[in-house]
Amino acid sequence: MRVFNSIVDLREYLAAFRQENKSIGLVPTMGYLHKGHISLIDKSVQENDITVLSIYVNPTQFGPNEDYGKYPSNIENDKKLAQKAGADIVFIPDNTIMYSNNHLTYVTVDKLTDNLCGQSRPTHFRGVTTIVTKLFNIVQPHRAYFGQKDAQQALVIKKMVKDLNMPVDIITCPIVREKDGLALSSRNAYLNNDERKQAPILYQSLQKSKSYIENGERSSSVIKNIIKEMIGEKPSTNIDYISIVSEDTLEDINLIKGNILIALAVKIGNTRLIDNLRMEVM
Amino acid sequence: MRVFNSIVDLREYLAAFRQENKSIGLVPTMGYLHKGHISLIDKSVQENDITVLSIYVNPTQFGPNEDYGKYPSNIENDKKLAQKAGADIVFIPDNTIMYSNNHLTYVTVDKLTDNLCGQSRPTHFRGVTTIVTKLFNIVQPHRAYFGQKDAQQALVIKKMVKDLNMPVDIITCPIVREKDGLALSSRNAYLNNDERKQAPILYQSLQKSKSYIENGERSSSVIKNIIKEMIGEKPSTNIDYISIVSEDTLEDINLIKGNILIALAVKIGNTRLIDNLRMEVM
Repeated sequence: MRVFNSIVDLREYLAAFRQENKSIGLVPTMGYLHKGHISLIDKSVQENDITVLSIYVNPTQFGPNEDYGKYPSNIENDKKLAQKAGADIVFIPDNTIMYSNNHLTYVTVDKLTDNLCGQSRPTHFRGVTTIVTKLFNIVQPHRAYFGQKDAQQALVIKKMVKDLNMPVDIITCPIVREKDGLALSSRNAYLNNDERKQAPILYQSLQKSKSYIENGERSSSVIKNIIKEMIGEKPSTNIDYISIVSEDTLEDINLIKGNILIALAVKIGNTRLIDNLRMEVM
Repeated sequence: MRVFNSIVDLREYLAAFRQENKSIGLVPTMGYLHKGHISLIDKSVQENDITVLSIYVNPTQFGPNEDYGKYPSNIENDKKLAQKAGADIVFIPDNTIMYSNNHLTYVTVDKLTDNLCGQSRPTHFRGVTTIVTKLFNIVQPHRAYFGQKDAQQALVIKKMVKDLNMPVDIITCPIVREKDGLALSSRNAYLNNDERKQAPILYQSLQKSKSYIENGERSSSVIKNIIKEMIGEKPSTNIDYISIVSEDTLEDINLIKGNILIALAVKIGNTRLIDNLRMEVM
């Protein structure tokens, strides 16, 4: 496994594989790898000749009062995990390499970024789409892998790729969970013991919603109230949003029908967690 | 020379050249080719194995009261001129191919698009950077060619390419002029005989400015007044802007020094013409 910090060196190394018509998979991450990330690497290794893992905590996707400065990091451990999972290349640029002092260009996806996390984090997706565009242009992968846990991110990136004709296939991989249902996230490291015990309520409330919908409930407000009550019973929770949206438009729906996404963002103590559930409802 | 309307067919045809490590040059145009465009094709043919000319009148770069609906077109003649100049491929997509009904993604370059044409045409450059990104992603050229006549466009695209790490070299080619100095433009076709006779005043005023600066004048306002007076003497003219800016920032400067751009936009009758002059001033 090779590690690169420089764009020029990475491109030169990749050019040789490209000339041999090797397929390249990219797994963009902010590091502090967990089994969710590993599942993305696994999938890329299965589907491509060469897998590139990028580790970069992208400042432009964090709001002014968010956790950019304290985002967890363990590069040495990440390298070990990446190697074990079969990654061929790890790309670890720093801010001076990724953004000039005078960075002026952004990629924006309208509408899909207005709701859900876009509402609480107004510049977040602009940061995501811009850095992902940069990584795509640097690595020029055939396929790129994203986790379903960040459901809105995956849909926004797919829309960007389609609208801008980017020559890359976006593959979304299932959420990986702890045994008690908590969706894996690097931010879970922020939780203290007590908060950690409360955190599976997000998953539990989604499962409860699923069973209600399977039993015929079609009212978004009924389902959202069920989730709200369940989460509200946990003392350290503070709900950011509970939304039921169309997966195509990410707009709120009143009647649960078609391809829907139930998406939650909840603060547990000071840690903001997200989770979601997709359903196809007749 | 091959002509493509479909993105899929074009990509498939280009893939074979890419596998042979042929270099690809792209000349993006809105058609109605003149000698300015031909100079771009010539340059691309010199520098690349394969030259792709794209012809597409991009709706998103026109404002609501601009000339999108009547932009001049002569595809058959364009094909002849392209073939004669040595283009290998002409790509002529239509709107249904280039924009979905639900296009939501845009590329924006801040600051550099605030002044000059960005002030009179507020959504113009967003349209340009978005369509150029799309064309780059479709063709994946090694080099792309733009005319210096659209000086701000060329600088904005260079900045976009740098900020987003696009794997393409941007080459800016000199303005091509009529014998009387009028910069070639497809929009010159709109001019009636009387307007055509007045049109070289843009070039003449730039040349006059150049000689003043060469003789030591360093005041932007003095130079701008000279230009304003010269152009004002022509009865059909209506000045949109006369600007003297730093070529790095495109911000107005009071003192003429360094790499500067004198840029003009002037309506002659109903036709908006632009022209410019670069100078390196000690």
